[in-house]
This record gives sequence, structure tokens and C-alpha cells, in this order.
Amino acid sequence: MDMKEETILIIGAGLCGSLLALRMAQRGYNVQLIEKRPDLRTVDLGAGRSINLAFSDRGIKGMKLVGLEEQVKELCIPMYGRMIHDMEGNTFLSRYSGREHEYINSVSRTGLNALLLDEAEKMENITLIFNHSCIEVDLEGGIATFYDEENDREILLKGAVVIGTDGAGSVLRKSMFLHKKFLFSFSQNFLTHGYKELTFPPAKDGGYLTEKGALHIWPRGENMVIALPNLDGSFTVTLFLSYSEGEYNFDNLNTPERVIEYFEKYYPDALELMPELATEYFENPVGALGTVKCSPWSSYGKTLLMGDAAHAIVPFYGQGMNASFEDVVVFDEILDKHEGDWNKVFAAYEKERKKDTDAIADLALDNFHEMKSHTASALFQEKRKLETAFEKEFPMEYSSKYSLVTFNEHIPYAEAMKRGRAQDKAILNLLADGKIKTNQSLRDQLELVKRETEEVLHDDAVAKNLM
Amino acid sequence: MDMKEETILIIGAGLCGSLLALRMAQRGYNVQLIEKRPDLRTVDLGAGRSINLAFSDRGIKGMKLVGLEEQVKELCIPMYGRMIHDMEGNTFLSRYSGREHEYINSVSRTGLNALLLDEAEKMENITLIFNHSCIEVDLEGGIATFYDEENDREILLKGAVVIGTDGAGSVLRKSMFLHKKFLFSFSQNFLTHGYKELTFPPAKDGGYLTEKGALHIWPRGENMVIALPNLDGSFTVTLFLSYSEGEYNFDNLNTPERVIEYFEKYYPDALELMPELATEYFENPVGALGTVKCSPWSSYGKTLLMGDAAHAIVPFYGQGMNASFEDVVVFDEILDKHEGDWNKVFAAYEKERKKDTDAIADLALDNFHEMKSHTASALFQEKRKLETAFEKEFPMEYSSKYSLVTFNEHIPYAEAMKRGRAQDKAILNLLADGKIKTNQSLRDQLELVKRETEEVLHDDAVAKNLM
Repeated sequence: MDMKEETILIIGAGLCGSLLALRMAQRGYNVQLIEKRPDLRTVDLGAGRSINLAFSDRGIKGMKLVGLEEQVKELCIPMYGRMIHDMEGNTFLSRYSGREHEYINSVSRTGLNALLLDEAEKMENITLIFNHSCIEVDLEGGIATFYDEENDREILLKGAVVIGTDGAGSVLRKSMFLHKKFLFSFSQNFLTHGYKELTFPPAKDGGYLTEKGALHIWPRGENMVIALPNLDGSFTVTLFLSYSEGEYNFDNLNTPERVIEYFEKYYPDALELMPELATEYFENPVGALGTVKCSPWSSYGKTLLMGDAAHAIVPFYGQGMNASFEDVVVFDEILDKHEGDWNKVFAAYEKERKKDTDAIADLALDNFHEMKSHTASALFQEKRKLETAFEKEFPMEYSSKYSLVTFNEHIPYAEAMKRGRAQDKAILNLLADGKIKTNQSLRDQLELVKRETEEVLHDDAVAKNLM
Repeated sequence: MDMKEETILIIGAGLCGSLLALRMAQRGYNVQLIEKRPDLRTVDLGAGRSINLAFSDRGIKGMKLVGLEEQVKELCIPMYGRMIHDMEGNTFLSRYSGREHEYINSVSRTGLNALLLDEAEKMENITLIFNHSCIEVDLEGGIATFYDEENDREILLKGAVVIGTDGAGSVLRKSMFLHKKFLFSFSQNFLTHGYKELTFPPAKDGGYLTEKGALHIWPRGENMVIALPNLDGSFTVTLFLSYSEGEYNFDNLNTPERVIEYFEKYYPDALELMPELATEYFENPVGALGTVKCSPWSSYGKTLLMGDAAHAIVPFYGQGMNASFEDVVVFDEILDKHEGDWNKVFAAYEKERKKDTDAIADLALDNFHEMKSHTASALFQEKRKLETAFEKEFPMEYSSKYSLVTFNEHIPYAEAMKRGRAQDKAILNLLADGKIKTNQSLRDQLELVKRETEEVLHDDAVAKNLM
């Protein structure tokens, strides 16, 4: 390893910060990784904060980069598709792909973070500091101020560069927003829905109360419940519900009786698996669902935002952590090209990456509607069946939007979005207009979809150039 | 007039605030209209701040509402189309509409504001206060704090409601952003281009140095110059230029020689009309071009954002002031329905209006590309020619996107955007694919465009429901 003089200050030792620290140390930098919370390997984290996550190919690419692709497998539970639960308690599995090797994983956030911190700790050139919360960053100086909780004092730390991986509420980003010496484009957009985490406990024999190998969805139009398996046999269950609209909402689900009434009416089969529902409901907080975008991501060649700090997204595509890990991979590639000139590195990184994180943010919003509503629609289900058949029969020729986004880590998000949306539009219109016929061969149906997709892309391109 | 007890506090006596104050006073409210700047009727305003504006049907609707539609005509100079100037100094007029009575106006911002303030001053139930800048607003109390510059003191003013018409940098909006007790969606997005205002002086005989009845454009792909006529024979000229990209930009146009060199190369015919270019260029500031969106627009049934404070847009559709005036018209209609319940009024107003101000914000961004680049394209010009012919020959059957947005004040912006974009996409594709033929009758061409437009709308609708 070619050791470097420069110190990289990384604010936030969550998933993105820990992976980045590890990679930068592997590249030979001195790394200071500072986290506001206690070491999550030594304390019990508060309940109700996203306990498991969907982990897929773009995330795996990040683990490969630091040589942890084998270790992470032990934390993973494969989920092969969406298990849709209707109002009557019937279920059916809608596979994520027609290709058998394409599935996503449920992974423990804490387990994954601990794995990365363990590895980081083994590196001599990483200093890990917990319980220090960043207060502000002097952008021009590259100096960050932290509050040291234990000793009740402020300390200043300076890096050759300061990288903010401090999440959706990033303090580095706030320092950029307040800086006023350059134009800072920024958006925070909240959904009208919040979320609350609940639990299916493990079965008495330590097994699973419902199918382990799927992401469960109870789509109810405006609202929904989902469940992801944990290694201990439990499921983390999340209720996505409007704050104030509709007959039942977070504002008016304010007594145990009313909560039970709501679940009895809309999620009876899930309710059966939640003996502690009423207790958990009132113990766990309601979380907000927001999208954050901003630009520039860097300032003065001294600071850079990465991960959620640069692009927080809603969780509905299961891509938040995967996108953050891919950030590190892309950043590493840019370093290969421009190492030694931070201004150039930061500019090239944002130019390469921002269009893709913008795309996954938009795709994640689309998927909210897809999960809570479209998955219950006959036309949508017909589309998924057709796509799964294409993927099974013609695995080299067709990938659905979901596959493009989730399993094709060599295709940038923006490209996956463009092609995926065109395909969706083509198939939905062909089906709605009765142009795909059951007496056609699957090959003919595929050719029809391909032609229609090209036409959608062509028409959009002509218009885009002059509209 | 049915006099009311309630006092309406309006922050900002610009165009929107003055019109709103007048209308609320006409409805019988006590109005306090507070402005941070001096009275613009008594002082000379700083140069370089948008001296004239495009004024069209939605703005006129606002003036009609308060009974000033006749008075405003004296301030207006009709502009019948875009006068496009190419690199060789050739010009051609691209009309805004094939219908002769459809044109936009150049109007003095100060003149229009003064007219509204004069009328406001005549109302006994309006109190006008200048030189008081708002510092913050207590949202729950409906109390605004102002700094009284003359007496160097702070004063508190309380209204039954507080309406912020304090522009793109709204202090009321900032108070909402910082409030933290409700989720506040917010975005500020800046273009990579800024603007600088310049001048063509009047001719020696007091006339105009170039065509008076047009909005002049020098489209140069990435950058452009435009010019709008003033009543005194001068034109206000605006240079829209990248901050830092391209061979010439605001960062590197830093000597008189270089400024002249740039204009000689790209705008030689405009340069001839600007004897003071080098002086003006360095006297006038570079302005930023930003879009602001936010939600909610109101809080606690006590405060409301209107005009640029709620939705600042870039100037390229000439709709900023028109949209703000239309705000007042829509708000007035909502008051007719729900007066007496501010919570209901504010909620109904945002529900009715926000989709439309979001739409005009997006349309205005599109038009930046249209003006600086597409107007110079052959295919785009062909489209405009065809649309103008449709409008002339079939005035009851066809309106271009520009007409829908600008001259059809009964059609909401969102609807105008949807239909207008579909038409543009249809025509551009029909032309690009050679499907509109010169040997077809204009009627046949129109029918073809109509059918293709319906197909675009249909395909989008099918997809939108399930994507």
C-alpha cells in the first residue's frame, strides 16, 4: 500500500462513512472517522429505526471493493419476490426476476455496519471516534467543529478534505446551505405519509411465522404494510400510513382499540402475527419520508457530501444503502483517474454521479405508488407476469425496470430509469389496447414490446431535443 | 362595502402584495401593507433590477379584478412576437399567435407597482408602511417582527392573518423552514446561468433604435441576449450567460476589452446599439436565476405565502408577475366560497393553486432552452410556422402551448402544460418523421396533429396510472 500524507476527515460512521473510511484507508490515506452516536457494537440502539434493509447488487459491488463480499453473505436472507397479501388473506408471489439467480437480500443494518467497523478498526491508518457530533464545518478552511459529549467540550478537526457521510440531516450540507458565498441548489420534499416499525416475532421453534424468502406487501391503495425477515426468525414490519388523510391515519390512530380496529379491517392476517401490536405501536415513533437533493456536492476542493447527506431517498426501491455503497465505488474509480487534485476529483465525481442519484430518488418515489397500489392491479400483475416470462425464456434479451435497477449494477441508474420507464409505458399500453394477444408466441410478444419501446424512446428523444 | 373587523397584515408591497392589499381592502378588510424598501414612487431604484416585464392575459385578469384594466393600458407596449436575430444580423419575426388580438406587453415594473400603490393609498382601510423590513414571523401567534430603519427599533405587528408577499427571499417562508414543528417541503434550484441588465438607449429623435413591437432574442445555443421596449424609447436588454462554462462566461468576462470582444463575436448588431456597454456591464450586478417551490404555503390558519414567496420562477415564460396576479384572483374566488374560515381558505387555495404554479415553474425552465437554443433550429421554426397557420386559419380549434399558457387565462397552467406538451411532442415527431406533407391541406395537417396529440395523451394516461 502506497501510504499518503493526507488526512481524510469523514463525518458519520454509518454504512456509507464506514465503507468509505475502509476504502480510503486501503488506498493509503490517514482516515479520521467521527460519529455522533455511541459505537453501535457496544450499545443497544433505539427501537423503531430501520432495523433491516434490502441489499442487492450495487451494494454487493461496494462490499467487493473492500474485499468483504464473502463475509456479508452470512448476514443476508435472500428474498425472491414480493409476497402480495390481499384483503382476504390470499397470497401470491410476484418474483423479482425470471432469472433464478436474481434476488434481493434482507440484511441487518446494525450487523452490516458492525462488520464494516470491525474491518475499519483493523486498519492502522483509521482513527475511530464516537460520541462526537458535528456542529458546523468551515468550508474554506476544511475544519469541522465537534461537540465531545463525554468531556462537554468542543474540538476542531482539520482534514486535507472533509467528507460528510452524515446522513439525511447532514451538518456539512447545512453549512453549505448557510454559506451564501456560492449558489446552493437544495430540496427537501416530504411525503404525506409517515412510517412506523412493528414486529412479527419468531415462531416458538425459532423459525419464521410466514414465508422467509420474500418481501411481504399488504397493498391497500393509499397505505400499506410490508415485512422483511431477520436472521432470528422475526420480521421487521413497517406500516406506511398517511399523516392526516383518509379514514385511518397517524393523526387519528390514537387509541389501542382504534389501531386494532384498523388492522382487523385491513391487515387481518398480519394482525394474527402481531401479539404486541398495540404496545409497539405506541412505543415506536412515526418516521418521516423525505427526498433530499442538492448541488454542488463539494466546496473549495475541501469538502464533499456522499451517501444520504448528498441524496436522501425514500425507501421504496430498497436502494438507499445500495446507492450509497455505489457512491463509494464510483468515487474510487474517479480517484483512480484524478487522484492528487481534489477539485478535479470532486467535480468529476458529481458530474458522473448526480444524474444517477437523481434518478434513483425519482424511481423510489414511483415505487411507493407501485407497492401500495399498483401491485394490487390486474393490469400491473399482467405486466409483471409477462416480464417474468420474458426474463425466464429470454434471459439475455430482456430485463424489467426492476431488474435493470436492482440486478444490473453495470447500468447506471439514469439509464435504467430511461429504458425501464419506456418499457413499462410500452407494455402497459400494448396490454391496455389489447395489442398483445394470447395466441401470439412469447417471442412475438417480446419483439412487439421491443419495437414499441424503441418507438417510445424515439418519440421522447425527438421531443426532448426541442421541448 | 361590507366592512370587516379583521386586520390583514401583508408583508411586501411589491406587485403581488400591492394588488392583494387593494383587493382585500375592496373586500372590506383592514389592511396593513408593510414594505422593507422606501416608497418606489419617491426614490430612484437601483439599476440592474428587472426594469420591464412581460404582462399578459393572466396579469390583466388581476388588474380587472381591482378595476384597473383601463389604467394599466397606458403603461403597456404591445409585443406581437419574437424578433429573432441570427449571427449575421438577419432578423425574422416569429409571432406569438396566429390570432391578431393575441400579443403580450412590455410594462414597467415600477410604473405598474406605482399605479397599484396609488390606488391602495386612496383606500381608507389600507395603512401603507415603508422602510420596515421583516425579521421573523411567529407562526402560531400570527405576529411579525419588523426592523424600523428610520428609528432603529424593532416593532411587532399582529394580524388576524399574516400574508407573505415578500418575494423569492421571503422571510415568512424562512420562518416556516426553520419552524420544525411541521414537515416543510422546500426547494431552491439555481441555473448555471446568471443575468445582467443592459440598455439600448432611445434614438436621438426619441424613437426606438430597433423594432418596438417585439421581444427581441439573440439565441446563441447556450447563452442569449433579449431586449424589451420601454415607453421612453429605450430597451432593457438582458444578457443570460453561464457563470463558468464555455469560452465566454461571467467569470472570465472581466475586462472591457473582453466584453466588447464577446459582443462583437456573438451580438454584433446589438453591440451597435449599446454605446455604453462596457460601462454598464461593470456597473450592473449579475443576478441569479432560481426556482423556489415549497409546501405547505400556510401554517396554523394564520399565515400564508403568495406570489414569488410561494413559487419563485425563472423569467423565461414572461409569467412571473402574471402568475402572482393570478394568485390573487384565485385567492379571491376561494374567499367567495370559504370566507370566515381561514384554515379552510388557505387549504383550499393551496389545493387549487399549487399544481398550477408548479407547472408554470417547469414551463419557465423549458422556455429557457427554447429561447436560447430551439428558436434557432429549423425543425422548431417549422413547428412554429405550422402552429401559427393553424391559429390563423382555425382560430377556434387550435392553440399552441405558448397560446394556452399566455392567452388562455381560463385554462389553468397545469392543464395548459399537459396539453401543450402533448401537442409539441406530436408535431415535432410528425415533422421529424416526415408524416406531415406539404401536399396535404392545412385541415388534414391539423386533423393529423389532433389525432397524434390524443394518442400521446392516451399513452401517457395509461402509463401514469400504473408507473
